[in-house]
Amino acid sequence: MIKIGLLGHGVVGTGVVDVISNKAQQLFEQTGETVEIKSILVRHDYDVDYKEKFVYDFADILADEEISIVVEAIGGTDPAYKYVKSALEAGKSVVTSNKELVAKHGFELMNIAEEKNINFIFEAAVGGAIPVIHGVRNCLKANKVNSIAGILNGTTNYILTKMIDEKQSFDVALKAAQELGYAEADPSADVDGIDTCRKICILADIVFGNHILPENVHTEGIRNVRIEDVDILKTVGGAIKLLGVAKRTEDDRLLIMTAPHVVFNQGILFAANDVFNAAQLETDNAGLMAFYGRGAGSLPTASAVVNDIVECICSEGTLYPAWGDEKPEAVADYKSVPMQFYVNVKDNAEKVKTVFENSDIVCTAEETAFITEKITENRLTEKLNGFTVNSVLRVL
Amino acid sequence: MIKIGLLGHGVVGTGVVDVISNKAQQLFEQTGETVEIKSILVRHDYDVDYKEKFVYDFADILADEEISIVVEAIGGTDPAYKYVKSALEAGKSVVTSNKELVAKHGFELMNIAEEKNINFIFEAAVGGAIPVIHGVRNCLKANKVNSIAGILNGTTNYILTKMIDEKQSFDVALKAAQELGYAEADPSADVDGIDTCRKICILADIVFGNHILPENVHTEGIRNVRIEDVDILKTVGGAIKLLGVAKRTEDDRLLIMTAPHVVFNQGILFAANDVFNAAQLETDNAGLMAFYGRGAGSLPTASAVVNDIVECICSEGTLYPAWGDEKPEAVADYKSVPMQFYVNVKDNAEKVKTVFENSDIVCTAEETAFITEKITENRLTEKLNGFTVNSVLRVL
Repeated sequence: MIKIGLLGHGVVGTGVVDVISNKAQQLFEQTGETVEIKSILVRHDYDVDYKEKFVYDFADILADEEISIVVEAIGGTDPAYKYVKSALEAGKSVVTSNKELVAKHGFELMNIAEEKNINFIFEAAVGGAIPVIHGVRNCLKANKVNSIAGILNGTTNYILTKMIDEKQSFDVALKAAQELGYAEADPSADVDGIDTCRKICILADIVFGNHILPENVHTEGIRNVRIEDVDILKTVGGAIKLLGVAKRTEDDRLLIMTAPHVVFNQGILFAANDVFNAAQLETDNAGLMAFYGRGAGSLPTASAVVNDIVECICSEGTLYPAWGDEKPEAVADYKSVPMQFYVNVKDNAEKVKTVFENSDIVCTAEETAFITEKITENRLTEKLNGFTVNSVLRVL
Repeated sequence: MIKIGLLGHGVVGTGVVDVISNKAQQLFEQTGETVEIKSILVRHDYDVDYKEKFVYDFADILADEEISIVVEAIGGTDPAYKYVKSALEAGKSVVTSNKELVAKHGFELMNIAEEKNINFIFEAAVGGAIPVIHGVRNCLKANKVNSIAGILNGTTNYILTKMIDEKQSFDVALKAAQELGYAEADPSADVDGIDTCRKICILADIVFGNHILPENVHTEGIRNVRIEDVDILKTVGGAIKLLGVAKRTEDDRLLIMTAPHVVFNQGILFAANDVFNAAQLETDNAGLMAFYGRGAGSLPTASAVVNDIVECICSEGTLYPAWGDEKPEAVADYKSVPMQFYVNVKDNAEKVKTVFENSDIVCTAEETAFITEKITENRLTEKLNGFTVNSVLRVL
């Protein structure tokens, strides 16, 4: 019998209760154990048919020696960080879907787990139900990952899909997302790229081996994405997607950022619409690969959490060693790495051609839109001196 | 030190030599062992700089007690089956990319491996570098898979992409594929769906739990795909893809087949073009998910083989128990399961509307094309009595 302490009873927490209950037999077959939620930490009393499991003080779970696995589904870092740290120190493995916690404190928490020879795992923290963390850790043992690019936030992908398919402005699409419950009343964590940033940091931590703090990563959201650019790009088979990107530079440093990017009509990132997430990897031997699925939602997220619980139960000690500590010098200045840009200016095509000789002009009306050759952002800024710039987007 | 016996030195075999050599350090870090190919079974002598590893008689590898893992990269079943079986019986784990072998003899070979507490694994047999087998086995422990649909053959996907994008006929596109080395001189295994059928059988074996012999699976290739239908479907956002499909029916039996299907402009199967493969799963808790990547090629396939080698080295005994024996009564008659069809007839729209009341008419010129409501193929055949039928395709 494996007894679980569940912290939190919101969208993810109730999903975990449901999945453990609807998969009882399957979990028993896979682990040889009956898996049971013994205690659920909630803030106040209310009516559910398993309310006898409710506890109101984390100390009760921490002190309970029957509980060997803690599932953290509170979100945020306060008090989640404190609870998770003390659970690990007490020798209980922890499973979480909390990207903020992992992105901020993953290095420390994984090290505690490693010392105790237990697990701190978090598949659901990136891409919800998509097994991208598991894939990167277990299926690329004969590969080096050169880059990751992911649509890692369903809310913003929904908004951008509405802008592309239905020509809605950002404000109108955001309102629709809020009405459907996809976006919160304060949508900042999603639309300003904060959530995506945390997730690309976690993927980069795993793939490139050192902890990267989200606050050190250049992050742009989608508030300034213009419907005019969406429409222009559509005519040339392009779409704007909010991507977390992490890639090795030529001098073996790491370019990492969150920003709206132009992707073209080839492959999975272009095709991942609505609330779906997708993560694309470029590897040296296997080439391009991608994972796609539901990045959020109660049951999808919970099913990834429960898969992690099974991993914990079947493991004999720490499955995945901690990544290394921060190495800020390994992160490149994003403005100094060459890449292609989509630029829209109020100036005419003649002027663009003079300054950007090797660019592709994709539209010439009142505005001139063009795609540059690979240049650094520093150089681009210099060259755009004298232009009236409507928008600049990176091209994947 | 882990010593490997490699059977075969063709596209996959040379790739395995390359990957083990270019990833020596990484493999050591992951396994704590130096991984070395000790012997390579070839049919005749020729010049490579490691030709001292060549052996010409399988008995030399079988008798070599230093060799603990055999990699089978011969292809086909004769002599691969005999060799693999005796390697397993001798207590050597076997890794293979041979879909014909696994689809035909997987049940028996996995059982031998289980008896000996060793491994018979074959990630590269389905989808090349795409970790779909690993994902299904390890990442869906809190899910039930209700259906699988996969583009599992790169050659046919390349041909169909040429037909869609460049309006080439099947014959012209096949010739282009042959000139590029994507299709063999005798393209039957690819274009007649045989290869796809083996792969969907393997996925279905794993997901649904019982061995399914390819010869019992309805299999249609793409020779009869008409450019006229490709064009008509394009106007309504549809594309024709060769899919392996396996799904639970309402009476909990299994519908399994290989056939060209119409997929619409949503999601990953529509977007997987050229030689790329993709596998899409519908699950109860996680919803829709998909895996995408290179389904063939020397290094991609070899990197999946080498990942399996690492799994073998790090395992303590059999990782994945054998699936069950054949259960033919669990497989539904494909003609009796309701689904939607795309139909193109020489008759006029009036006549179509009379007989197929609830169908969507997508084109009315000299031909009438329409998409039916869900009906069985038996019923469709009855209803098409009296029509002059140009083509019938299933709709995913």
